[in-house]
Amino acid sequence: MSNILKRLETILQQRKQDDPTASYVASLYDKGLDTILKKIGEEATETVIAAKSGDKTQIIYETADLWFHSLVLLAQQDLSADDVLKELERRFGLSGLDEKANRTK
Amino acid sequence: MSNILKRLETILQQRKQDDPTASYVASLYDKGLDTILKKIGEEATETVIAAKSGDKTQIIYETADLWFHSLVLLAQQDLSADDVLKELERRFGLSGLDEKANRTK
Amino acid sequence: MSNILKRLETILQQRKQDDPTASYVASLYDKGLDTILKKIGEEATETVIAAKSGDKTQIIYETADLWFHSLVLLAQQDLSADDVLKELERRFGLSGLDEKANRTK
Amino acid sequence: MSNILKRLETILQQRKQDDPTASYVASLYDKGLDTILKKIGEEATETVIAAKSGDKTQIIYETADLWFHSLVLLAQQDLSADDVLKELERRFGLSGLDEKANRTK
Repeated sequence: MSNILKRLETILQQRKQDDPTASYVASLYDKGLDTILKKIGEEATETVIAAKSGDKTQIIYETADLWFHSLVLLAQQDLSADDVLKELERRFGLSGLDEKANRTK
Repeated sequence: MSNILKRLETILQQRKQDDPTASYVASLYDKGLDTILKKIGEEATETVIAAKSGDKTQIIYETADLWFHSLVLLAQQDLSADDVLKELERRFGLSGLDEKANRTK
Repeated sequence: MSNILKRLETILQQRKQDDPTASYVASLYDKGLDTILKKIGEEATETVIAAKSGDKTQIIYETADLWFHSLVLLAQQDLSADDVLKELERRFGLSGLDEKANRTK
Repeated sequence: MSNILKRLETILQQRKQDDPTASYVASLYDKGLDTILKKIGEEATETVIAAKSGDKTQIIYETADLWFHSLVLLAQQDLSADDVLKELERRFGLSGLDEKANRTK
């Protein structure tokens, strides 16, 4: 896994012990699953808007927000970015052939 | 960057030359930006639904779909996963302190 | 309630008895709540894309799709468009003053 | 059109002249299209979450929010709820037969 994803995961785990008033991530855990999911919906919409605006800096920024809140969801669910990367590897690594054959949709 | 993200980026770049009828990714490029963005909206909603269903396998699967289509967007825009990871690093690496201070929302 | 909303609700109730292979709405009921919710997420994203494209005909079309699938959700939950319209009326009708005072977000 | 939709449209048109600091709707117009679209994405996600939570009161509340912000978009674009209702009528009223035949997706 990338260094930054690994470091982020460590930080996100540490935040579980933190004071919700002192950390944005701790406040997300404290507010709970629905708040984290609302952020994922929001950031996906903001990524769409940035892309339609043709603003590449904003696309990077909003995609970072989207991935970040996905990582918060994974941490909150005791899952890992590695689980997601392995799923991506499984889809693409099986045969080296086009991924299309492995998709059902 | 992680090996799988790097490999995926290489594959996504290669697909730009592929026949849209032979590759799912090539068909996304061919249909264009709006189709890719619709997929991001769809996969974000499916991640929310999976999480509310409490189905961890499905959370991994849908998050993989969400990240995958984000990577397709980045490739289509000639951006890189590394741009996003660097943005995440910038936010978290500046001071080693809580990321909250760096957020405007 | 508007005539078309009332007629749509009657149609949506009738579809509950219909063959899922013969009616789009009956197929949505048959596939269940998650499928209906995915459509709401999809149509919201498509409304955003249409608006960012500056295509007014498409905004109308996608908003119609969004409202339509909201009505399917309401019917599937044995709720009514009238419940939603009454909630809107409650927010705006209380005082005749600005709605802002009644909002918590 | 329903009385409440007609009244809401009148209010939403009036808000175009209002002080953005005094009215929530005027503040949305002032912030512009992207802010209105973010709200549509947010409220769609919140509708999905409410439905997955099985909370019917919340479904009504979030659907009202979703329709309300759709109406703000229509007003901002100088479109009308009637345009959307007529599109729905067109789809359902053409033949009295199942709407499926008129759908391309």
